[in-house]
Amino acid sequence: MSPVVGARAAPARRIGLICGGGDFPVEVAAAAVAGGREVLLIGLKGSADDSIEAFPHVWVHVGEVGKVFRALEDFGTRDLALVGAVRRPAAKDVRLDWVGMKSVGQLGRLLGGGDDRVLAGLIDFLERQGYAVVGVQDVAPSLLVAAGVLGRVTPDADAQADIAEARRLLGALGPFDVGQSVVIADRRVLAVEAAEGTDLMLKRVGKLRAQRRVRGEGGCLVKMAKPGQDLRVDLPAIGPRTVEAAIEAKLAGIAVEAGRAIATDLKGLTAAADKAGIFLFGFDEDAPAS
Amino acid sequence: MSPVVGARAAPARRIGLICGGGDFPVEVAAAAVAGGREVLLIGLKGSADDSIEAFPHVWVHVGEVGKVFRALEDFGTRDLALVGAVRRPAAKDVRLDWVGMKSVGQLGRLLGGGDDRVLAGLIDFLERQGYAVVGVQDVAPSLLVAAGVLGRVTPDADAQADIAEARRLLGALGPFDVGQSVVIADRRVLAVEAAEGTDLMLKRVGKLRAQRRVRGEGGCLVKMAKPGQDLRVDLPAIGPRTVEAAIEAKLAGIAVEAGRAIATDLKGLTAAADKAGIFLFGFDEDAPAS
Repeated sequence: MSPVVGARAAPARRIGLICGGGDFPVEVAAAAVAGGREVLLIGLKGSADDSIEAFPHVWVHVGEVGKVFRALEDFGTRDLALVGAVRRPAAKDVRLDWVGMKSVGQLGRLLGGGDDRVLAGLIDFLERQGYAVVGVQDVAPSLLVAAGVLGRVTPDADAQADIAEARRLLGALGPFDVGQSVVIADRRVLAVEAAEGTDLMLKRVGKLRAQRRVRGEGGCLVKMAKPGQDLRVDLPAIGPRTVEAAIEAKLAGIAVEAGRAIATDLKGLTAAADKAGIFLFGFDEDAPAS
Repeated sequence: MSPVVGARAAPARRIGLICGGGDFPVEVAAAAVAGGREVLLIGLKGSADDSIEAFPHVWVHVGEVGKVFRALEDFGTRDLALVGAVRRPAAKDVRLDWVGMKSVGQLGRLLGGGDDRVLAGLIDFLERQGYAVVGVQDVAPSLLVAAGVLGRVTPDADAQADIAEARRLLGALGPFDVGQSVVIADRRVLAVEAAEGTDLMLKRVGKLRAQRRVRGEGGCLVKMAKPGQDLRVDLPAIGPRTVEAAIEAKLAGIAVEAGRAIATDLKGLTAAADKAGIFLFGFDEDAPAS
């Protein structure tokens, strides 16, 4: 697994998007098309949303590896990106075709480990088959979060201290197969993301505060890629639900790593954040945390 | 704050227990009395349970510092221990007496920080007043978890690998004001404890599994003191609810640090664990994690 991203300066004009769940695949497809690319969306049954059908698409079961390869060949590309959340598939969503059968040993090993290892293994598998896996940042760079204050609210010194502490904490968590985000207030860690994902973690903080199990308001969500993470998969992302949940949790703001995080519907996000009076901040990945 | 615990070989025969919430204060009191000590339970209004009234006791509001000191003087001891969960108090539960008024600047600073700092500050405050703060392990050593397999089920090699990984992770989290436990399965971190506490974290894992957001069974809860933690406060603890929640979360077992964790009702815990076929394991704090 390579920590270097975008080593290929420009991916091919045609790109296959292997689509997991959520709105994200459609956002990426729209941004890619707006950027002058052609896309084929390959929806994983059991994960991808029907909304992908707004674009040229094909549906596959997990395990229909041959069908994926044929679709990419027909479309005329060997470049692809993995977009959206992929759950470990339920048995009914798995169907092995001939190529899948031949790969089953290799693929089977992917399903046991943590997210990191599943995705790293999947990329490795695809690259061994002669495909180039590129990142969302290459396909749709307009979705990357810029450095600095994104809305109207600026994080104060207290928030900056929280962000610095959170970055140190996430750095320390780097070697472990765990989440990419924390909620921190006044240097106290209120929540650490693991298997539940960012949105449920934020809801938990909102609930703990509503129940007075955690007192006070403020603090922020800090989300960043792991040190050494392969940025072609699972780039940290924020979307409308992230902002909503942060507002519900009475946070002062959201900070993500500039250039290494994706924002879907940034205009909507900043409008919602401005209205609620919370900050959206892209911190510079090259500046030290303290 | 001293990381050294139990430097005084034998605390006084009479001990004051400043009691926060839950059954724990009563368990400690019972074990201390069984060990030949006399106890005075000082219940914090808004935190402590009425069950403390089974022992010699006095109730105080947070802030009634003078009242605490007088009660200890009447009882004839300058040794005390802090037992049970203390929430940051609601305004209605705070009442400052004269000594409290004089200490308000020092005490006020305690209420802002994370749990670590609140408790460290409280101990510091008490020791400056000439009190000796001792640990539960000194007052009621019979509650400490022993090394090795505590029930009938032995953790297998896979569980041992999970425990080792969790110990590394908790070690990395040591410098941060965050929880003492994680749930890990097959080296994947399912949950990290922060402000929600161990029981709610376990419930979350149970829910994620019931909703199939996390697939599979097994894995374990690993709980240990932070490196350098003052063991006179907030010693990691497991109780009946921990075991129940671990069973609900379909874990394979629970591992805590031998000699540095408390088990309340160990007999009941091992019986419940044996019945459910999960392990209870005390790992040796001096053996390396890997």
